[in-house]
Amino acid sequence: MTRQGIPQAGNNLDPWYDHYAARAAGLRASEVRALFAVASRPEVVSLAGGMPFVSALPHDVVTDAMSRVMTEQGSVALQYGSGQGIPVFREQILEVMALEGIRANADDVVVTTGSQHALELVSKLFLDPGDIVIAEGPSYVTAMVIFKSYQADVEHVPMDENGLIPEALREHIARLKADGRRIKFLYTIPSFHNPAGVTLSRERRLEILSIARENDILVLEDNPYGLLYFDQPAPDAMRSVEEDGVVYLGTFSKTLAPGFRMGWALAPHAIREKLVLANEAAVLSPSSFSQLVISEYLSTADWKGQIDTFRGVYRERKNAMLAALEEFLPELSWTDPAGGFYVWLTLPEMLDSKAMLPRAVKELVAYTPGTAFFADGSGRQNMRLSFCYPTPENIRLGVRRLATVIQGELDLLGTFAGTGPLDSPVDGRRFGAPPPNLS
Amino acid sequence: MTRQGIPQAGNNLDPWYDHYAARAAGLRASEVRALFAVASRPEVVSLAGGMPFVSALPHDVVTDAMSRVMTEQGSVALQYGSGQGIPVFREQILEVMALEGIRANADDVVVTTGSQHALELVSKLFLDPGDIVIAEGPSYVTAMVIFKSYQADVEHVPMDENGLIPEALREHIARLKADGRRIKFLYTIPSFHNPAGVTLSRERRLEILSIARENDILVLEDNPYGLLYFDQPAPDAMRSVEEDGVVYLGTFSKTLAPGFRMGWALAPHAIREKLVLANEAAVLSPSSFSQLVISEYLSTADWKGQIDTFRGVYRERKNAMLAALEEFLPELSWTDPAGGFYVWLTLPEMLDSKAMLPRAVKELVAYTPGTAFFADGSGRQNMRLSFCYPTPENIRLGVRRLATVIQGELDLLGTFAGTGPLDSPVDGRRFGAPPPNLS
Repeated sequence: MTRQGIPQAGNNLDPWYDHYAARAAGLRASEVRALFAVASRPEVVSLAGGMPFVSALPHDVVTDAMSRVMTEQGSVALQYGSGQGIPVFREQILEVMALEGIRANADDVVVTTGSQHALELVSKLFLDPGDIVIAEGPSYVTAMVIFKSYQADVEHVPMDENGLIPEALREHIARLKADGRRIKFLYTIPSFHNPAGVTLSRERRLEILSIARENDILVLEDNPYGLLYFDQPAPDAMRSVEEDGVVYLGTFSKTLAPGFRMGWALAPHAIREKLVLANEAAVLSPSSFSQLVISEYLSTADWKGQIDTFRGVYRERKNAMLAALEEFLPELSWTDPAGGFYVWLTLPEMLDSKAMLPRAVKELVAYTPGTAFFADGSGRQNMRLSFCYPTPENIRLGVRRLATVIQGELDLLGTFAGTGPLDSPVDGRRFGAPPPNLS
Repeated sequence: MTRQGIPQAGNNLDPWYDHYAARAAGLRASEVRALFAVASRPEVVSLAGGMPFVSALPHDVVTDAMSRVMTEQGSVALQYGSGQGIPVFREQILEVMALEGIRANADDVVVTTGSQHALELVSKLFLDPGDIVIAEGPSYVTAMVIFKSYQADVEHVPMDENGLIPEALREHIARLKADGRRIKFLYTIPSFHNPAGVTLSRERRLEILSIARENDILVLEDNPYGLLYFDQPAPDAMRSVEEDGVVYLGTFSKTLAPGFRMGWALAPHAIREKLVLANEAAVLSPSSFSQLVISEYLSTADWKGQIDTFRGVYRERKNAMLAALEEFLPELSWTDPAGGFYVWLTLPEMLDSKAMLPRAVKELVAYTPGTAFFADGSGRQNMRLSFCYPTPENIRLGVRRLATVIQGELDLLGTFAGTGPLDSPVDGRRFGAPPPNLS
């Protein structure tokens, strides 16, 4: 007894098989998820996950903030709060956003359970089945899981070393409109992109905002990494130049710690009102305790200095990764991120990052295959390498192991095809030039 | 430019007016929400909210647990976790549920951001537009907000002093099926019902499970108050006698503190798998920090003794409320809860609790009008009175003020209708007999 014509989730071993909503068919385990299990074995060097290096945060600073919160505001911290979040905390969030040029009113901020939940709430509010979300190709895995869970289709627009390509965006929009598709928003990670590691230039930010405005498309600006630049700050946030057409998502997961699950949305007023209602329906209120602890931390600790510390940690690791790639895989091409957590690597044409993964794990290194970051199955020639969590030494070890795996794959191909390994280098332009799957 | 035939959320002042998903039309501010603002003025005795009395929890016990977590497991507490929740914590949740007769496997538990979020995730997983959720009438406000946000229709089945009436449930199901409606689940709060204050008898639990099984309807058992009985425990949870057909929702908000936003779902295995995927999409992982703090609290503190303390607090307040009702409003009828937070009061027929509210607030007392708890506009003759948060003295003061308001309304009606106040008592059966809107 299944509903005809509707893709079914579950299987016949599940007695509730025919009871799920149509949208449940979109909820499938991601490739990244399966990897987490593999990569958690201690002998594996994981270049796969996106865990921030929280050990660089002095734990006593957090413990002290907690103790003060419990002493001074314990009954508030333990209680339900408002669906929008604590006013003082929302004011402090404005100070964080001011570092990227954003001027806003605390009344337009909604505190959420990580910025992931802001993404979920915006999607719930806007996406009807069959709607289109435009996203960079590649894009953030779990954003696409959400879009699909609301039965929207993700349309990728290519990037190059300066981020999303405005001309390509124009063409995609025109084609989608000609096809009668309803485009709900442009989901973008303009700074230190996950997974591509590139940053949208200031000129392009303005041009893309202008394209979005002309076409009546809301921009969903996801900015988890913006403050984690290595040398120069990224251009100001898109929200800093456009108020009415941007929903901005921020988080404390990368600048403080993800264990609190604290993020926020800054939205045009009417959207903000609905986001609060959606937030209340979903969780009643965000955690009062987590909000007050972070609020106390922001009031009393040198939080900007802490972000500098994180920058130093990630800069060193990025350098370690790029040096190792130069040393062990000089024939390949990769992006050179100016901040954030990720490098996007392009393999020789004949290799398949997804098919190669089991062999890599056997060699005790893990990465995320490029296919995880595309809704349409592309990305086999790419992989995302994370430098955020492993030590510089382990990054070097991981890349060396990866080189062994890649060489082994090429040897194998050479054996069958009769050509030597790496005798046709794919792209000598290592930096600055777009690897194949970014442009 | 609005979509024809689809109810629109927002208004013309909102430039994104025609961009919202159809489901956004269901997200409206609840009556209870507006009340929170009113009731927060210190001079108002609020019998409206459902805030637990967290001051009865020794804060140093919580602070100590936090400090130990940060010292011993800081890097885990600050980090992302798994989408299902920490295994040790899920094992401890089994111990909590065992108090209500539930035997289960920790692998079937999913930790959520309060049990509210479990409700949201189950709804996202199961509800297609036009589906039916059967719920008690009255039912929990914010559950109905979620159901409506997924475009499901809520069908109320009446209760009496022993909870949901099985015969009425049978009739409703038969009628809905005859109408070709698709019933997705029965949402029920069997113990110390919010807002009705009644408890489903053991015989009826079995009968209702049997009706659900016969009709292939999933039971969503929401049990936030089960451990907060005054004298005798409630009958064992419905999940204790039926594994395959029940999704059970639990929370630490009432037995510990809501500020952590920690709850859980216990679900049949196939449903549990999908719930984890939905949880990951929505929040990546529940807060590691909150999980570990509660886990440490459960390991080291006398958590059962603490629940006894809460029971004592709420028993005293329930007694204060019933004594005040006897003293100031002896002509009316109300439910006599055996646990939980709420009394359901029935007004004389000619009164309207919703219309009366502004006058009550003017007299410095707040309550929740019965209409908030029905999807169909009924409940005007009822109100929910909460005894969880105010002191016994304030409860008495609040009920006295409420009596003044009711008397004033009756005087006014008497002036117009020519009858004296309260000269036609509505229902002499105060306890044991069902007030009009419960049966």
